[in-house]
Amino acid sequence: MSKEFDRRIGRHAIMYAFAEEEEEISLTNDLKRMNWLYGKGKVGSMELQKIVAAIETSAKRLGLVNPDIYREMHALYHAIIEALHGVTRGQVELGGLLRTAGLRFAIVRGRPFKNSDEGEWIAVAVYGTIGAPVRGFEHEAVGLGINHI
Amino acid sequence: MSKEFDRRIGRHAIMYAFAEEEEEISLTNDLKRMNWLYGKGKVGSMELQKIVAAIETSAKRLGLVNPDIYREMHALYHAIIEALHGVTRGQVELGGLLRTAGLRFAIVRGRPFKNSDEGEWIAVAVYGTIGAPVRGFEHEAVGLGINHI
Amino acid sequence: MSKEFDRRIGRHAIMYAFAEEEEEISLTNDLKRMNWLYGKGKVGSMELQKIVAAIETSAKRLGLVNPDIYREMHALYHAIIEALHGVTRGQVELGGLLRTAGLRFAIVRGRPFKNSDEGEWIAVAVYGTIGAPVRGFEHEAVGLGINHI
Amino acid sequence: MSKEFDRRIGRHAIMYAFAEEEEEISLTNDLKRMNWLYGKGKVGSMELQKIVAAIETSAKRLGLVNPDIYREMHALYHAIIEALHGVTRGQVELGGLLRTAGLRFAIVRGRPFKNSDEGEWIAVAVYGTIGAPVRGFEHEAVGLGINHI
Amino acid sequence: MSKEFDRRIGRHAIMYAFAEEEEEISLTNDLKRMNWLYGKGKVGSMELQKIVAAIETSAKRLGLVNPDIYREMHALYHAIIEALHGVTRGQVELGGLLRTAGLRFAIVRGRPFKNSDEGEWIAVAVYGTIGAPVRGFEHEAVGLGINHI
Amino acid sequence: MSKEFDRRIGRHAIMYAFAEEEEEISLTNDLKRMNWLYGKGKVGSMELQKIVAAIETSAKRLGLVNPDIYREMHALYHAIIEALHGVTRGQVELGGLLRTAGLRFAIVRGRPFKNSDEGEWIAVAVYGTIGAPVRGFEHEAVGLGINHI
Ligand SMILES: [Mg+2]
Ligand SMILES: [Mg+2]
Ligand SMILES: [Mg+2]
Ligand SMILES: [Mg+2]
Ligand SMILES: [Mg+2]
Ligand SMILES: [Mg+2]
Repeated sequence: MSKEFDRRIGRHAIMYAFAEEEEEISLTNDLKRMNWLYGKGKVGSMELQKIVAAIETSAKRLGLVNPDIYREMHALYHAIIEALHGVTRGQVELGGLLRTAGLRFAIVRGRPFKNSDEGEWIAVAVYGTIGAPVRGFEHEAVGLGINHI
Repeated sequence: MSKEFDRRIGRHAIMYAFAEEEEEISLTNDLKRMNWLYGKGKVGSMELQKIVAAIETSAKRLGLVNPDIYREMHALYHAIIEALHGVTRGQVELGGLLRTAGLRFAIVRGRPFKNSDEGEWIAVAVYGTIGAPVRGFEHEAVGLGINHI
Repeated sequence: MSKEFDRRIGRHAIMYAFAEEEEEISLTNDLKRMNWLYGKGKVGSMELQKIVAAIETSAKRLGLVNPDIYREMHALYHAIIEALHGVTRGQVELGGLLRTAGLRFAIVRGRPFKNSDEGEWIAVAVYGTIGAPVRGFEHEAVGLGINHI
Repeated sequence: MSKEFDRRIGRHAIMYAFAEEEEEISLTNDLKRMNWLYGKGKVGSMELQKIVAAIETSAKRLGLVNPDIYREMHALYHAIIEALHGVTRGQVELGGLLRTAGLRFAIVRGRPFKNSDEGEWIAVAVYGTIGAPVRGFEHEAVGLGINHI
Repeated sequence: MSKEFDRRIGRHAIMYAFAEEEEEISLTNDLKRMNWLYGKGKVGSMELQKIVAAIETSAKRLGLVNPDIYREMHALYHAIIEALHGVTRGQVELGGLLRTAGLRFAIVRGRPFKNSDEGEWIAVAVYGTIGAPVRGFEHEAVGLGINHI
Repeated sequence: MSKEFDRRIGRHAIMYAFAEEEEEISLTNDLKRMNWLYGKGKVGSMELQKIVAAIETSAKRLGLVNPDIYREMHALYHAIIEALHGVTRGQVELGGLLRTAGLRFAIVRGRPFKNSDEGEWIAVAVYGTIGAPVRGFEHEAVGLGINHI
């Protein structure tokens, strides 16, 4: 008898963002079993728009969103911005506040609710470091944005 | 030859917040080996101040901070508020925006930097759901705040 | 030969929020022709959550959203909060900043994009006055929130 | 017997920002009758400061404010920034969040209160689209700022 | 030959807020010489609206603003809220973030610009402590808001 | 019998930021008596990061913080950003909102609490003008940030 799916899309996204290569396999097996879409990437910048762009580009290239449908890009965009609130904790800004971030991000698209009418949702998780533009003068930061898509 | 400590205090805090009872043992073994302090708790409320209070109270009761030293409470307070930015993603407010949150939190106090001059830091991780005051009408949220203590 | 539909859902919502009873007929005729859903209401309060609740309740009662589907309520909620940013212009708060608001709101649900894949969107428009809790010591405010639904 | 003036300066500003050329005549006739000053313009940019500058420049060139009096420019500036809160709905930022806006703006200067001691006020209305730097991947946005001048 | 007036209204307001009774005389002599209006008060609360109300009430009672003219109350209100940003440094909120403030405030109304066309301006200075609702667990905070009136 | 030390570190920092050269001597004598560290500087920019950098650089050069210890730079950084909230009063941004600032800043490091366990704290005070990039079209602004270090 199969264990029930763990539908916590945000937790999946965070765990996947945390995962080193070796750990990814078991995590993604679960997501595959559920037929959920997922992908990840890395980006470091003092310019927040480059971080937004990197996540959007990954999501498009990995087929997690349909780049021709604004509706999907709108859902993704707001999830990204919500995730970045957790990273920036106040002003959603990096270079203008003289700080930089080095981040891994994971995107998961799936059905976190049992009721099929709830449809698909997207989770964007971001994990990494934020701090001064000086090596090692940084601490960790995490963000999660979730939206219906 | 012993594996090197994983000093990522924020990641530890998030994993510990995520952990169900059975998973906690291996997580906390790592923290114990490093002589780091840790604790966790749960709180649900539409009033953000109750969430702040619950985390502060836990930290005091579990001996993670010295409740008689403002310096320590100040470090903790700012870490909590930073973590709540990730949960609220905009206005740091719950009931006033007609939303409620059910959260687990984990607090870890340790030395995330090899250089002993960097001293102790505190990480507050928060994970749970946020949404309308209607059962099931909620999605996940995560926050992490880190401060020197 | 029929005039093309005006698909500017936000403009429709604002105009409908502005409209006095006599003007509503021509506005809503356009919306009916497009098979778009619409509704309006009034609310005055120093408590922002009462304004959010009034808009949500109207949307449910008027059949503009399906109250049993979180996905729909989530779309509506974020549209409301976005609209309230225009009203509050800074901190999304009323009574805590010793101010009160008297607002009309209009909700329009339709298809603002020609491409049918873009699906349905929802617009929440809010118009009224904001100011001190003293009669006449207030000025106008407007907000608009738009989301895919 | 003449109809009473409609002193709702914010509504006038929004309607004037919405108006296409043909509709402007009747709107501005009302404003002229009241001896109110008004003007409008268009601006599109990913840089918020260009939008602020465009509105300030228009207001000066159209004689709506005295460019040699800081008091007037201060009143206008704060009205503009308040209006932009409605457009940006959170962080008052465009390019740094990888988004762009194409806006019409209208400025109205008049006496919204019957009591002549209340003096002149200024309303800045902004209407247009905001979204990704991709044609059509944008939705409407509105903002209104009102200040005593 | 008389020394020129020091027109720095904000600095005057801060100094006056700082001043103990004995120091007030020389400060207010300067303000009197310039025919500027001034007043001060104290307020402590976890509810921000009580702080706003206390400053407004003082300003009215001390004759610094005309309580029957919204224009004046509007100018004062925005100056107060701007000052409170300096005190709260992020979310403009006290009790909801489980913190309290004990503040002195000073209000100065005068002509900070030599050009008489610049008219009157108002400065609201706030100085005190903010922190946990525990005696001594607090640090200083300062805010200044300036507006044309 | 010696007068007791005035431990109000924030007030000291603001007074020192205000002080002209002649007034500085008595102010700094008090700070010297307490063995507190202090320093000051000036910076003007439309770019907020330049202001942050100028304060950080001053603090390092004047020996107020140890530039090799992230813990100290982290404490300073957050104190700076908190101080800038008082200057910007809303969005923590200058050029992007088409405004510029000319500021003096003072940094004081000392022991504001009698209890020696409370250790060292740092205060960053900022005072100057903010406004349009037009000479004289600006008003005063103040900010204060305090952190344990
Ligand atoms: Mg949501
Ligand atoms: Mg930090
Ligand atoms: Mg949007
Ligand atoms: Mg106002
Ligand atoms: Mg100003
Ligand atoms: Mg603090």
